[in-house]
Amino acid sequence: MRPNPPEQLPQHRYPVDPWRLVEIEYDNDDLGLTETLFATGNGYIGMRANPEEGREAHSHGTFLNGFHESWHIQHAEEAFGFARTGQTIVNVPDAKLIKLYVDDEPLLLATDDLDDYSRTLDFRTGVLTRDLIWRTPAGKRVKVTSTRMVSFTHRHLAMLTFEVTMLDSPAPVVISSQLLNRQDGEDEYHVRSAALGQGRDPRRSRVFDHRVLQPMIQRHDRHNGEVVLGYRCANSRMTLACGYRHLINTGCEHKVDTQIGDDLAKTVFTVRAEVNTPIRLVKLVTYHSSTGVPAEELGDRCSRTLQRVVEEGADTLVDGQQAWLDEFWESSDVELRGDPPAQQALRWNLYQLAQATARTHEQGVAAKGVTGAGYEGHYFWDTETYIVPFLSYTNPDAARKLLRFRWRMLPVARQRAVDLNQRGALYPWRTINGEEASAYYAAGTAQYHINAAIMFALKRYLDASGDIYFLADEGVEMLAETARLWEDLGFYANNGEMTFRIYGVTGPDEYTTVVNDNMYTNVMARFNLRYAARSIELLKEWDRPAYDRLCRRLELDESEIKGWNTAAEAMYIPYDERLGIHPQDENFLDREPWDFDGTPPDKYPLLLNFHPLVIYRHQVLKQADVVLAMFLASELFTLEQKRRNFDYYDPITTGDSSLSACVQAVVAAQIGYESLALDYFREALFADLADIHANTTDGVHIASAGGAWGALVFGFAGMIDNGLALRFTPSLPKGWDGFEFRITRHGSRMSVDVDRKGCVVSVLSGPPVPLVDGEHQVHVDEGTSYRIAAIRLPPSEPDVGAGGTSTAT
Amino acid sequence: MRPNPPEQLPQHRYPVDPWRLVEIEYDNDDLGLTETLFATGNGYIGMRANPEEGREAHSHGTFLNGFHESWHIQHAEEAFGFARTGQTIVNVPDAKLIKLYVDDEPLLLATDDLDDYSRTLDFRTGVLTRDLIWRTPAGKRVKVTSTRMVSFTHRHLAMLTFEVTMLDSPAPVVISSQLLNRQDGEDEYHVRSAALGQGRDPRRSRVFDHRVLQPMIQRHDRHNGEVVLGYRCANSRMTLACGYRHLINTGCEHKVDTQIGDDLAKTVFTVRAEVNTPIRLVKLVTYHSSTGVPAEELGDRCSRTLQRVVEEGADTLVDGQQAWLDEFWESSDVELRGDPPAQQALRWNLYQLAQATARTHEQGVAAKGVTGAGYEGHYFWDTETYIVPFLSYTNPDAARKLLRFRWRMLPVARQRAVDLNQRGALYPWRTINGEEASAYYAAGTAQYHINAAIMFALKRYLDASGDIYFLADEGVEMLAETARLWEDLGFYANNGEMTFRIYGVTGPDEYTTVVNDNMYTNVMARFNLRYAARSIELLKEWDRPAYDRLCRRLELDESEIKGWNTAAEAMYIPYDERLGIHPQDENFLDREPWDFDGTPPDKYPLLLNFHPLVIYRHQVLKQADVVLAMFLASELFTLEQKRRNFDYYDPITTGDSSLSACVQAVVAAQIGYESLALDYFREALFADLADIHANTTDGVHIASAGGAWGALVFGFAGMIDNGLALRFTPSLPKGWDGFEFRITRHGSRMSVDVDRKGCVVSVLSGPPVPLVDGEHQVHVDEGTSYRIAAIRLPPSEPDVGAGGTSTAT
Repeated sequence: MRPNPPEQLPQHRYPVDPWRLVEIEYDNDDLGLTETLFATGNGYIGMRANPEEGREAHSHGTFLNGFHESWHIQHAEEAFGFARTGQTIVNVPDAKLIKLYVDDEPLLLATDDLDDYSRTLDFRTGVLTRDLIWRTPAGKRVKVTSTRMVSFTHRHLAMLTFEVTMLDSPAPVVISSQLLNRQDGEDEYHVRSAALGQGRDPRRSRVFDHRVLQPMIQRHDRHNGEVVLGYRCANSRMTLACGYRHLINTGCEHKVDTQIGDDLAKTVFTVRAEVNTPIRLVKLVTYHSSTGVPAEELGDRCSRTLQRVVEEGADTLVDGQQAWLDEFWESSDVELRGDPPAQQALRWNLYQLAQATARTHEQGVAAKGVTGAGYEGHYFWDTETYIVPFLSYTNPDAARKLLRFRWRMLPVARQRAVDLNQRGALYPWRTINGEEASAYYAAGTAQYHINAAIMFALKRYLDASGDIYFLADEGVEMLAETARLWEDLGFYANNGEMTFRIYGVTGPDEYTTVVNDNMYTNVMARFNLRYAARSIELLKEWDRPAYDRLCRRLELDESEIKGWNTAAEAMYIPYDERLGIHPQDENFLDREPWDFDGTPPDKYPLLLNFHPLVIYRHQVLKQADVVLAMFLASELFTLEQKRRNFDYYDPITTGDSSLSACVQAVVAAQIGYESLALDYFREALFADLADIHANTTDGVHIASAGGAWGALVFGFAGMIDNGLALRFTPSLPKGWDGFEFRITRHGSRMSVDVDRKGCVVSVLSGPPVPLVDGEHQVHVDEGTSYRIAAIRLPPSEPDVGAGGTSTAT
Repeated sequence: MRPNPPEQLPQHRYPVDPWRLVEIEYDNDDLGLTETLFATGNGYIGMRANPEEGREAHSHGTFLNGFHESWHIQHAEEAFGFARTGQTIVNVPDAKLIKLYVDDEPLLLATDDLDDYSRTLDFRTGVLTRDLIWRTPAGKRVKVTSTRMVSFTHRHLAMLTFEVTMLDSPAPVVISSQLLNRQDGEDEYHVRSAALGQGRDPRRSRVFDHRVLQPMIQRHDRHNGEVVLGYRCANSRMTLACGYRHLINTGCEHKVDTQIGDDLAKTVFTVRAEVNTPIRLVKLVTYHSSTGVPAEELGDRCSRTLQRVVEEGADTLVDGQQAWLDEFWESSDVELRGDPPAQQALRWNLYQLAQATARTHEQGVAAKGVTGAGYEGHYFWDTETYIVPFLSYTNPDAARKLLRFRWRMLPVARQRAVDLNQRGALYPWRTINGEEASAYYAAGTAQYHINAAIMFALKRYLDASGDIYFLADEGVEMLAETARLWEDLGFYANNGEMTFRIYGVTGPDEYTTVVNDNMYTNVMARFNLRYAARSIELLKEWDRPAYDRLCRRLELDESEIKGWNTAAEAMYIPYDERLGIHPQDENFLDREPWDFDGTPPDKYPLLLNFHPLVIYRHQVLKQADVVLAMFLASELFTLEQKRRNFDYYDPITTGDSSLSACVQAVVAAQIGYESLALDYFREALFADLADIHANTTDGVHIASAGGAWGALVFGFAGMIDNGLALRFTPSLPKGWDGFEFRITRHGSRMSVDVDRKGCVVSVLSGPPVPLVDGEHQVHVDEGTSYRIAAIRLPPSEPDVGAGGTSTAT
């Protein structure tokens, strides 16, 4: 269905700015949205953008990537092999709270008289700043400036500043800086919607009915004012410690008092404030969490983290933040000429990618990054399909860590395969700790395609980095176990010819489930089987002892590897001769068409308005997985096939999934549907900023952010990387003057500048970069550029298995 | 898979007896089984066969048909339209308790020294009797005889007797007769298995975590000793009152004391027992329940029920019980010559049918009758497909009530159709109060075929009874609303010819779910559409004003009715030309075969040992629904087709469903697989007596009991009734000398006696009975008999839609 995205944000509230998101009006009605849009994080710590006053909120959220409570999944009706252990990210104690009282009157944004207000998230400094002038009930004007930054360089650290200046009159000022455990992660919204008896949106997070965080330590160092609280999760036994220290700087007379309890520590600054004499407070905050270390020890780590920052000086934190972001933009920026609102939105999306991935270390990237508890803080295939490609070309080390995270998950994935009666390894559809946490197998465990998505991400990373050591050490093991699963899951059927079929699986489009021969799954499984066989054969040539060790460890032999190739060769790919399209699954084209005309807008997303049985039996898509296959395995399809497939599926795709728009954009761009591609790109770009899916309250759609980058690079610039060389088939959307992006490939940092005539590839540093330009292969040396002309090729023939040849017209 | 049923029960414990189930050894190890086998009930009240002492038990159960608690179904992952309100039958206060103390020592079967022990369920008197001689710790011999009977004539009444005789020495004897509310229906087994952390068997009942029965009244009438307790369910608000009165008869000196509390009332008889002087106690027990009447009023009803029995005299109860059963056996008995163990088992099964259906009034028949809480006390399609046919020919009034129960459910079924985005009415897959309670839609709500099963039962009843008034008053409305659903659910597809398809449904075989064009469903939907159209056309001719009223009420017109016929004509029935069989669904034959050789016996039932996804993607059946279609729509298939279908499906049918064996028996008999038919018949016959499914602890498989009757009548006797005349194609299994069954049809009571040469149909009373014998139609008059020869016909051609012609060889 044709998207209808905004062209810009409402200017009266969010003026255009290329490097910042700025809010110049406070609005109490969409707090959930702005808490997400202005959230700060570093991939480990995430803080929703709640005002320091800690009152009005959609949800007061602070999250630590991977820090979760577990719970027994109570299935309404049990069956063998259903996921047993639920996992939910925990809302940890809130250190954002800094409450201000002037003349004993509290500052309260919702009702107070504000002479001035602005909030700015600066993508270059990495600091969220709020400036306001408060006219108190007594009529005194108070300037309040606060900043918040979660450090990109120090994983465990955040810094808040709070500066108060009396502009007209002196007054007694009290600043109460807190660390508050809002027990059990329950927040107002959940309580409210439960009270109203509303049905729960399954995409939202769980409400616990027990005390999750059990108090373990409460420390207060009277010498330096340091406070540390420690907890243990009741079920998961994960531990947490968090703490703060303050630095106060003012010419005003003041005293300090600290109180500490199980669930609240507060340090209260009582100040005799003079006119035009700033009271400046710095609050250093730290969080440490663990699956095994006692809270006591984490408490010690908190003290050391805080002590180190105090010794180094808070300014070094600010400088480090800036330096980190300089490097980030140097390697990841996309400059978009001729469309300032899109430029701003794009940088916001890229900044979200930084906030979601900078310091994940060896955790995954949750569907909402660290900005909310949506989808329980779980990791899905989104990471591999939508985020790892971006990281592979901008921050390969981060991509590598995400893949290592999956490698460390192998033992649990092997056990899950056993549970499902299969050999090899089956990655969990959604998880934090590696165990399957999907309580609805039809749109969960049945999505076996996650195995291939992870292997596809591995290939993206290896093609971009050339890191064959990772392939040899971790990659081949994952490849072997995933290939094993596919070979065991499918079966040979003889319908005239012998074909390899995969039955009873769900593709990325969750609006049909448990189908036979899902085309996307079969294409990706074939890739997985072939890539595993080829990589292990490569290992055999390259490092025979390593190959022998692998075979012994996995009880692998050549005949099994041969079997993978045999299955891949025989893989059945549904194709309908009559329509000239690829059916989404074996039965897809036989289904009844959906009555789009009879479906009013308020019935979307369908999943919240129709029983699954109703959705599943119709031709209607949440996201078009044939189109996704055409993106990820572009070389398998002729231009004509791509167009016919796209023409068939696009009108019946609701885009109810936020993973949809960016993929439609890539393929629309590749097949020359320029204006549609641009609309889809904007839909991905503004997914959160314009709250297109009406649930940005629950956190950013981080995959959509990755996908928006992908739409530019793989869609409009038409970049294809087969591991040996790069190819571009650029096509600049109407209305833009051009765009330039930075990537790093095999150690070479490059810029690619797309304009009306084609693109210019410049190698900024590193070894020469191999390019394919039409029939020619060229190498672009450091410090030089190469221009590729925009070309229009006739439709090409299918070229299965070889390098890509498809182009945009 | 070939069944391997027992030929008889273990004789050392259960000696053969044609009219009784007798246990001559007490065994503490299989209490769950014997509690079920010796349970007493009348279709409303059900009492598990717990010993009066109330100690050792698998589960102390007393149930009232339809008396349930409701609860919010917490789905692990929510979706639109999922069932919201769970319903679970409640274990009501236990009046079975009569505790005996001699010299202050309690009688305890598990450990005591018993000189003699027997327990007898007598199918002709309707009384459960226990006889034992207890050698007390002091060495005194005490004769204890107790009886229990749930009245077949008084819906709300049960009577227990307890007689104690000191054989050698006098002793102080205390008899404590109780009414105990074991709170919340929780029993030892559940607590134990939860404590052991065992996974729950989904077929078992729910354990509540709240106090279900809220005490409302406690009454004790000091004048007559009457005790009444009243309760209300916390969520469902259903009300209950229960009470007792005692009659004591003894030559010994005694006194009586009664205590009463919220959850326990007890009347204690303290007796100075003399040698050989019986102490005889009669305990009259009553239960009343309601969805709306206050417990106070139910308490009054209890008093009136008890008072009436006391006035009429307890002996009249015993006489009435006997008279009711005389009539039952007169109308329902099957005499089986030459196989005494099978005769006993058969009568036990028929007796279970009496206990499950005698006094249901307008409730359904739960999957376990009233013998246990398995499947939560829910009503399924079992009632209509396996029980109503038996009742239609033996107790038409009971069949009519069950159908009226479904008619009264129409408003809720209409709402459920709306929830599922359909017109018409959709009956709930499992329910007590009419609301869908299936928490797993794939094997629940998706079984739309229940709509057709209910209409099929309607046809059985109408063919057997000729009750056109029921058709006109209730039948046509159900027919119209169910036909509407089918016409709206399916759709027309043009694959060369225009066919009507039904996608995304589950057939009776729950080992594949949410499939397209399930052959059973399509056959039954076609029947439903045609039968609705034909019946309403009939009504139009027969009673035009009634027809007009129906059309106005349902906004029905002729074009809609025509549309049902059009859909029926275009209905797609999967058929595979190559194999000459009917695929179970459009994709069934493409699935991977199940590895039966690699599946050890302890992996059955598969549903408890494999993830649903694993089961669903293979060719493996829980029950063969193509075979069921061949039973219910026998006329659609040639003998050759039947054999080919049977040959294909039987080996891949696990029979993990207790609904399977009896159907396999019918069709095996019809196609001449005599020995296999007999094995399947025995498997159905001994399903509970030999605990073949290892869960008779949870209650009897009442559908299997009905199915066993069906196997004899429709299978071995080959009875077909098209509403106009009866046809028989008898074939007597080897090893039997013959069998004779009683049926009532259109008011004529008949016996059918099957022997080696054929069968003899005798009309015992009522109008002449039309029979088809080969090419001839005959009428058999009251008091006369007609012999039909066993015939062997060549395979016949398909005869779609006309009367049946298929026969056994």
